[in-house]
Amino acid sequence: MTAFGRSIGKFALLCAAVIGLTGPAHAEDGYDLWLRYRTPATTSSALKIEARGDTPTLRAAAEELRRSNLFATKAPTILLATATDRDVAALRLPLAALGDEGYRVGYVTLGNRRTLLVTANTDRGVLYGSFALLRHLQTGGSLDRIDLTSTPRVKLRVLNHWDNLDGVVERGYAGASLWDWWTLPDFRDPRYTDYARANASIGINGTVLNNVNAKAESLTAPYIAKAAALADIFRPYGIKVYLSARFSAPIELGGLKTADPRDPAVGRWWRAKADEIYRAIPDFGGFLVKANSEGQPGPRDYGATHADGANMLAAAVKPHGGIVMWRAFVYADTDPDDRAKQAYDEFKPLDGRFADNVVVQVKNGAIDFQPREPFHPLFGAMPRTPLMIEFQITKEYLGFATHLAYLAPLFAKTLDAQTGTAPGATVARVVDGSLEGHRLTGMAGVANIGDSRDWTGSPFNQANWYAFGRLAWDPGLTPEAIAREWTAQSFGRDPQVMRTVTDMLMRSREAVVDYTGALGLAHLMATGHHYGPAPWVSDLKRPEWNPVYYHRADRGGIGFDRTKTGSNAVAQYAPALAARLADPRTTPESELLWFHHLPWDYRMASGQTLWETLARRYDRGVDTVAAMRREWEALRGRVDPQRWAKTATFLAVQEREARWWRDASLSYWMSVNHLPLPAGMAPPAHDLDWYKQQRFPFAPGNPQ
Amino acid sequence: MTAFGRSIGKFALLCAAVIGLTGPAHAEDGYDLWLRYRTPATTSSALKIEARGDTPTLRAAAEELRRSNLFATKAPTILLATATDRDVAALRLPLAALGDEGYRVGYVTLGNRRTLLVTANTDRGVLYGSFALLRHLQTGGSLDRIDLTSTPRVKLRVLNHWDNLDGVVERGYAGASLWDWWTLPDFRDPRYTDYARANASIGINGTVLNNVNAKAESLTAPYIAKAAALADIFRPYGIKVYLSARFSAPIELGGLKTADPRDPAVGRWWRAKADEIYRAIPDFGGFLVKANSEGQPGPRDYGATHADGANMLAAAVKPHGGIVMWRAFVYADTDPDDRAKQAYDEFKPLDGRFADNVVVQVKNGAIDFQPREPFHPLFGAMPRTPLMIEFQITKEYLGFATHLAYLAPLFAKTLDAQTGTAPGATVARVVDGSLEGHRLTGMAGVANIGDSRDWTGSPFNQANWYAFGRLAWDPGLTPEAIAREWTAQSFGRDPQVMRTVTDMLMRSREAVVDYTGALGLAHLMATGHHYGPAPWVSDLKRPEWNPVYYHRADRGGIGFDRTKTGSNAVAQYAPALAARLADPRTTPESELLWFHHLPWDYRMASGQTLWETLARRYDRGVDTVAAMRREWEALRGRVDPQRWAKTATFLAVQEREARWWRDASLSYWMSVNHLPLPAGMAPPAHDLDWYKQQRFPFAPGNPQ
Repeated sequence: MTAFGRSIGKFALLCAAVIGLTGPAHAEDGYDLWLRYRTPATTSSALKIEARGDTPTLRAAAEELRRSNLFATKAPTILLATATDRDVAALRLPLAALGDEGYRVGYVTLGNRRTLLVTANTDRGVLYGSFALLRHLQTGGSLDRIDLTSTPRVKLRVLNHWDNLDGVVERGYAGASLWDWWTLPDFRDPRYTDYARANASIGINGTVLNNVNAKAESLTAPYIAKAAALADIFRPYGIKVYLSARFSAPIELGGLKTADPRDPAVGRWWRAKADEIYRAIPDFGGFLVKANSEGQPGPRDYGATHADGANMLAAAVKPHGGIVMWRAFVYADTDPDDRAKQAYDEFKPLDGRFADNVVVQVKNGAIDFQPREPFHPLFGAMPRTPLMIEFQITKEYLGFATHLAYLAPLFAKTLDAQTGTAPGATVARVVDGSLEGHRLTGMAGVANIGDSRDWTGSPFNQANWYAFGRLAWDPGLTPEAIAREWTAQSFGRDPQVMRTVTDMLMRSREAVVDYTGALGLAHLMATGHHYGPAPWVSDLKRPEWNPVYYHRADRGGIGFDRTKTGSNAVAQYAPALAARLADPRTTPESELLWFHHLPWDYRMASGQTLWETLARRYDRGVDTVAAMRREWEALRGRVDPQRWAKTATFLAVQEREARWWRDASLSYWMSVNHLPLPAGMAPPAHDLDWYKQQRFPFAPGNPQ
Repeated sequence: MTAFGRSIGKFALLCAAVIGLTGPAHAEDGYDLWLRYRTPATTSSALKIEARGDTPTLRAAAEELRRSNLFATKAPTILLATATDRDVAALRLPLAALGDEGYRVGYVTLGNRRTLLVTANTDRGVLYGSFALLRHLQTGGSLDRIDLTSTPRVKLRVLNHWDNLDGVVERGYAGASLWDWWTLPDFRDPRYTDYARANASIGINGTVLNNVNAKAESLTAPYIAKAAALADIFRPYGIKVYLSARFSAPIELGGLKTADPRDPAVGRWWRAKADEIYRAIPDFGGFLVKANSEGQPGPRDYGATHADGANMLAAAVKPHGGIVMWRAFVYADTDPDDRAKQAYDEFKPLDGRFADNVVVQVKNGAIDFQPREPFHPLFGAMPRTPLMIEFQITKEYLGFATHLAYLAPLFAKTLDAQTGTAPGATVARVVDGSLEGHRLTGMAGVANIGDSRDWTGSPFNQANWYAFGRLAWDPGLTPEAIAREWTAQSFGRDPQVMRTVTDMLMRSREAVVDYTGALGLAHLMATGHHYGPAPWVSDLKRPEWNPVYYHRADRGGIGFDRTKTGSNAVAQYAPALAARLADPRTTPESELLWFHHLPWDYRMASGQTLWETLARRYDRGVDTVAAMRREWEALRGRVDPQRWAKTATFLAVQEREARWWRDASLSYWMSVNHLPLPAGMAPPAHDLDWYKQQRFPFAPGNPQ
């Protein structure tokens, strides 16, 4: 180490001490997300960054590199330039394949000088490349050898904010909405820019600002102006703004008597509305629509189809280059047979009937973001229609913000699922359009972001936002690779921290499945707020609102028969897959009771009975959480105190509540099957009635 | 300057640069409040602090002094010790008069060593003294000459949080509730400690956690445990926790058939509930109750009196040393004569009938926290009952968080008002108990605090929290002195900043009065959310909900006749004062139309007509805001960028909305009086109908 280096090191230490002294306002509270830029820390005064051209996006890229403070004194000159730059063009790099958003980061020689070139066909690509460079360095990549080239496989990488205009986030567990609609468009909170930075760093390029359960007011002039202010802030970061549209807005705002998509006046109203929006937001992304689902208005109110509705809206935004994302999440009490079948039944006949700027948004599974579901049968069933997949990043059914559950394994498992329609056909290849050559491709995640200081309600929930973005960019990334990336950036590269955090992440979601109900059980949660166990609920108005509808447990057995003897939902899958799922012996154990109703003494592959297997999974889930807690305890002092303490507290809550899920569930199953607990298992702490009496009248995220 | 000093100075500059580089997470975002401790910045490694005794409160005091970083290298030894410390006792200082909470800070000689002694009779007093010392230094006081002695004049210095259990703050404009009830009692957000620090620094010693429009659930075991966790955090800072109690809780939670305070079973239920609370919170402060007001249940539902209700609750907390704060804010549609008279009519007959641990909480004025109201006639009218005053720090009627309005002039004017009951009798002397020798004294402020990063929704709103606390400690402080203190601590001591900010603060509330309606007009705001002008509203169910009820404007004149020819509310004041208020010529101009209905051409003292005077006040209000905006503009670069920009934006909003108030109000008055605008005044920007059509369906703070 040179004398200069030593003095810098000492200086950094002293500064760290001073920063520490300024009190809790500057503690590590999670605000920085994975953009912490803490290691190595030194001055960046020596850093030379040249941006060719002066667009807001290039300025953002250069600013991010400067603020990162990640470069040693031997930092190279960094050049940010698009492919049209004369020097870059002269290098004759193979940039065409990068498309609109891909990037290339690597060393080149320019005028005899070794230069680190961040290039792309667009300034957005340069921005993505800059973030890739920072990720490379933060995860321990060498500054000497850099060769980063990547192009996103999916075009629309979108967050769906279920944010209401009154600031309440439906299924939000991280505080109120990040959008302060009241002070917009005047006040532009610097946090909006940090939101855009975080999204751009993982490649997210779209945000739907308001809840799919939409209010018509979001389409009025004042709210368009507010959305436009956000669009202005997000634009340099390559992020387009979308709005959820209430289908009946022509009635509520326009004074029309109908919202029938076939009525010319309705079409005119939407065209005028789209024109108005595009005057304020020239690059407005388009509409997301939840129609004829859970009480929302839609085209079926008028005897028209979902395609009629989607195409009418699509025509309104088409002249401006906008799109419509039309949700396939529908179910109605008119078809009590099997809720899991309804989206398929309603949408498959419409295949090929959607306009070319419509994409149908399909949840990962056929019910509703459960801890585990088989992939949605619509994937593979609508070859002539672009389907984007919708994941839920917010953990409505996986312990809200409090429980630690890393969702990348859930996302990846769905994306990797073989649809069976062709060799090598996976959900990912349906979604990325490569199977059928669709131009419009997308992945949406229901955001877990609120105005909590740490954005997502806990330090670990940030990993799910991160993983969603990374998978949307490249569905081929493994959950473990993403976990390691996130950990290094979020907690630093201490090997023990890296190992422990990555391990915790990787086991966490399976633990939730185990303690909430394994083997393909689903929808066992309490009513309304969806927190905690309530498999006993059977008295709600619509049959498919009740957990008993899903598990169908009785003295004779448990599970939903979706084979020919039952609802025959298996027939919605490709024939070979359907045949496998029709037989419990060839159904994956993790999905067994999703597809089959089986006796409690059914013999599993292990030789254990179904009941013993199910029961012991609850213990396994609780044990995993207890182990995670111990492992985190061992990191005390290796992780900054504030994030450490919050995580330790939440893990304690999770362990207590995992036991609650276990005990309540076992109590109930035993009340149904009258079987004893498997040998050695501890009895539930309370009787069943105690569990039934738990109430959470003010649970977050539950709109009243 | 010594070489060491130079090197320290250079070091500090370098560190500042590094801190600046770490990005927006560490920008000045207002989180630090007036506890910024930025000047002078140097290391505190040389600081010697000795705390005698090891109580959590003394630890908090020592920690605060250490974190402040305010002491130069010549810092003296600081000794924190209570009066019982042997060395302190030997000094024979006159400490007895300090009482439980007062402090003395000054130099003493201990063992030949000059020592800065922070002492008091209790550790709470030492904490208050430590904060006084920091205030002294932050406001430019010398480290060499320190002689700070102070004792609070008011015993209960309390914040009322109108926070609902679902996180919504009624009349809250600074985000959601600071209390994350969902994660309590497990997760103890470090922010709770910072809340306690801020309150302790200005002497606030009590906090009512939940809305006076209370839910019974706040008294259930889970919520008592949550409140207990907060109480544990606040205790070292001398802050007691109180709860708003729903009067009908014995029915809702206890399954009783009645909440009649005279029913022995009801009394037993409350005693058991109090016992349960005190088991969890041994120093629980007691209950705040809003009864028989705006739909809340209360003793009058059973034909009992407010005293019956209050005394029954008082008996429940009495064995534990608790108190009951019983609100006098009542009005009912059964008495449509004059809403301003009702609290007096209902409470005065009860004077002397309240238990000795009951204090009646009376709003500063008889209507409801308007931009200006005469002092409440109950002050001076209930000599045998302790009355605490209730101010509203959150600006429900003064532009929410967006408008800049410094409320200390409003608070001080009320406190300084002569009640006329005896020579020198002021509202302050009623409140501090000195007139009648009451032991129980108090001042309550409806908090303007939420989970916004800057706590209060804007940097300047922090001044109102600060001023409330300082006035509660010492009602004799002047608004200007408090403004200067706050400015120095919040923005530093640059003379131009000090002068400009203090001037802005001091003029701001009068500007709001001017542009919303001067000369004693009140209750002219829009329905429900209370934002913006709506003097025309006349169609609400209850007469006293309508602005027209209050201004009574017609072709002939404007104002509410509260003299003998009208409601005779003036008779509620002491006779000499009542006589002055009965005559418009001896009524303060600022309260003229509160007490009198006068013709539009009534001649004011200036010789102008009433109409011209009123109209020109609107212009004056708008002009003042425009001037504030220009002055703030001149501070660009002298105030940190983030707080500067937010304030600049909000001032722009305020100027626009001041014009809106002006134009809408003038339009309406002209539609009533058919008079032209005074010469030279600009006509309203829109016609009256336009103003009537403004809608704010999602305004914050308005419970649905």
